[in-house]
Amino acid sequence: MTDPRLTPLAAGLPETVPFVGPEAQERAMGRPFLARLGANESVFGPSPAAVRAMQEAAGEIWKYADPEAHDLRRALAAHHGVPPDCVAIDAGIDTLLGLVVRLFVAPGETVVTSDGAYPTLNYHVEGFGGRIETVPYRDDREDPAALLARASETGAKLLYLCNPDNPMGTWHDAATVAAAIAAVPEGCLMILDEAYGDFSPPGTLPPLDPADARVIRLRTFSKAYGMAGARVGYAVSHPDVIAGFDRVRNHFGMNRAAQAGALAALGDTAWLAEVIERTAAARDRITAIAAANGLSCIPSATNFVTVDCGSDAAFATAVRDALVARGVFVRMPFAAPGNRCIRVGAGSPEDLDRFAEALSPALASADETLS
Amino acid sequence: MTDPRLTPLAAGLPETVPFVGPEAQERAMGRPFLARLGANESVFGPSPAAVRAMQEAAGEIWKYADPEAHDLRRALAAHHGVPPDCVAIDAGIDTLLGLVVRLFVAPGETVVTSDGAYPTLNYHVEGFGGRIETVPYRDDREDPAALLARASETGAKLLYLCNPDNPMGTWHDAATVAAAIAAVPEGCLMILDEAYGDFSPPGTLPPLDPADARVIRLRTFSKAYGMAGARVGYAVSHPDVIAGFDRVRNHFGMNRAAQAGALAALGDTAWLAEVIERTAAARDRITAIAAANGLSCIPSATNFVTVDCGSDAAFATAVRDALVARGVFVRMPFAAPGNRCIRVGAGSPEDLDRFAEALSPALASADETLS
Repeated sequence: MTDPRLTPLAAGLPETVPFVGPEAQERAMGRPFLARLGANESVFGPSPAAVRAMQEAAGEIWKYADPEAHDLRRALAAHHGVPPDCVAIDAGIDTLLGLVVRLFVAPGETVVTSDGAYPTLNYHVEGFGGRIETVPYRDDREDPAALLARASETGAKLLYLCNPDNPMGTWHDAATVAAAIAAVPEGCLMILDEAYGDFSPPGTLPPLDPADARVIRLRTFSKAYGMAGARVGYAVSHPDVIAGFDRVRNHFGMNRAAQAGALAALGDTAWLAEVIERTAAARDRITAIAAANGLSCIPSATNFVTVDCGSDAAFATAVRDALVARGVFVRMPFAAPGNRCIRVGAGSPEDLDRFAEALSPALASADETLS
Repeated sequence: MTDPRLTPLAAGLPETVPFVGPEAQERAMGRPFLARLGANESVFGPSPAAVRAMQEAAGEIWKYADPEAHDLRRALAAHHGVPPDCVAIDAGIDTLLGLVVRLFVAPGETVVTSDGAYPTLNYHVEGFGGRIETVPYRDDREDPAALLARASETGAKLLYLCNPDNPMGTWHDAATVAAAIAAVPEGCLMILDEAYGDFSPPGTLPPLDPADARVIRLRTFSKAYGMAGARVGYAVSHPDVIAGFDRVRNHFGMNRAAQAGALAALGDTAWLAEVIERTAAARDRITAIAAANGLSCIPSATNFVTVDCGSDAAFATAVRDALVARGVFVRMPFAAPGNRCIRVGAGSPEDLDRFAEALSPALASADETLS
């Protein structure tokens, strides 16, 4: 029963889990997945230096973390060549998205995003009473011109662009993104989600400009750094934008070992380079496995490949379900036309052996289900 | 400069760090504290089983945590003898407080608390546009009758009671608290913060009643379990109250190793008992050290002792500052009349040696400062 004491806003929200976790699926199936390729995690794991740092921090976990994340903030600032007051750190991009929405979107105000883009943004916007406006993908890519036009028409407070994009894996080059930033309408803030930026080819990420208050750039240790379970993300923007977080964040909200792990991970550039290389090899292998089954893939600048199942959403859903039933955890885009595809994460060679074994029977099973 | 795009609510909030962390003080002093006794942490640390579990989880930190925290939720439910749907887990009581305020307090609505009680509650209430009403402590204890009367008069949505109390360390017995719960006005929810409950004498915590939607009980792994830096807290209430969290929480917001650590910690009852015993011994020692310096202490059911400095806030502030300058990190209550005191955490024998050495010169220094 809905608690009658809830605010009208809260009472109007669904009780929801935006994504069902793989653990819930494993419990339902009664067995673990053979390959965990559905959550855009890095199976290659964190830097051994980060693991050591987190293990060493475990004994000191009785201490609250530094609420200013001083050392990590300074290290990130130095890493990116920006002043520390241009960097805000919190428990993952999801947390940062929630805070940005809370800071900038009053009830009834508009946020523009793509239809089928990261649903946790929409979850936060709805959660704070905002209004979502979507534009479609164009050729499986987010469409900056359409996003900007819609933001301008609707007087949007926020505009969300994910580059490289999740769930399609596609990207725009830095010049296109820079031009989009330059065209952000007055009164609007662009959220440029670059969670997958570490995997993207050179020339994808525009330079960070701490003087530019039109855009907030979001980065994370969850993807290339292999620390999704640690919850460390950060934002880079103009100091006036960044200062807003101190108004509403949970100052003591971060895990202490996670801060230590991220600091160590940032220093291990060799590990990052190796992960990027292994991820690229895994993308190639996924593409080859798909091709061997007559399927094409959408070129990806991320740690996953979106495989075009060559038909409609019902078929892709059946393929996904058949893969899951065979112990291969994958997900799929939510909205048309992306939902003709499944999304397969860059696995280890063994993970991708499992995917290769399962794909052909999964396609046959999907054919059968729908015939 | 305040960003003109902020919501009016956000623009009206201060850019603040509710508590300055000890790390910031250490950076300012240029040296580490000799004894860290100011943040109500457990210097005795987590169970070795919890440390092992977190260390083992470090290598798997590339996986997001289970968004349902299934295993920990079931273990906590079993531990407390309530159904799992009566338990919500999140990244510490601070996070849960923020979510409760967000769920129940619309802008302009009232929350009743004690003047000088946990300021992070107030931070969240102001952050969501609520209105704080306070009643004074009575004999250094929170005053349930006054809180209830004020909640009734103001039509409050939330009423906050911390038992045992922070920052005074005092407590009410279970019968008093149960009577207060029974008297919560229609339309109001009592937040019963029992962060320090593990340290309290038998007969302090009323039985958990999953049928009672008038109260939400908050517990944590940050205090007796020694895992403040991990960020694991939980709420116990009626399932209708608990279900609200799924509307607004960050489903993937928890650290994976923290979930594993908390599960292991919950199982190590021998460690918990030992920590409680060592904490009690430390309280006795703090009381003895204070007495040796002519100061009395307020009886405590927590992991800290509030030491009455025998004068006013200016004197207690000077004592605190002099202890900090001597490398002993302590804090003090914010509001009168509690701010005649300093608050000293249950340290190790070595920590309390440092406190014992520093207290007498700190008192002399405070005398001198104010003379």
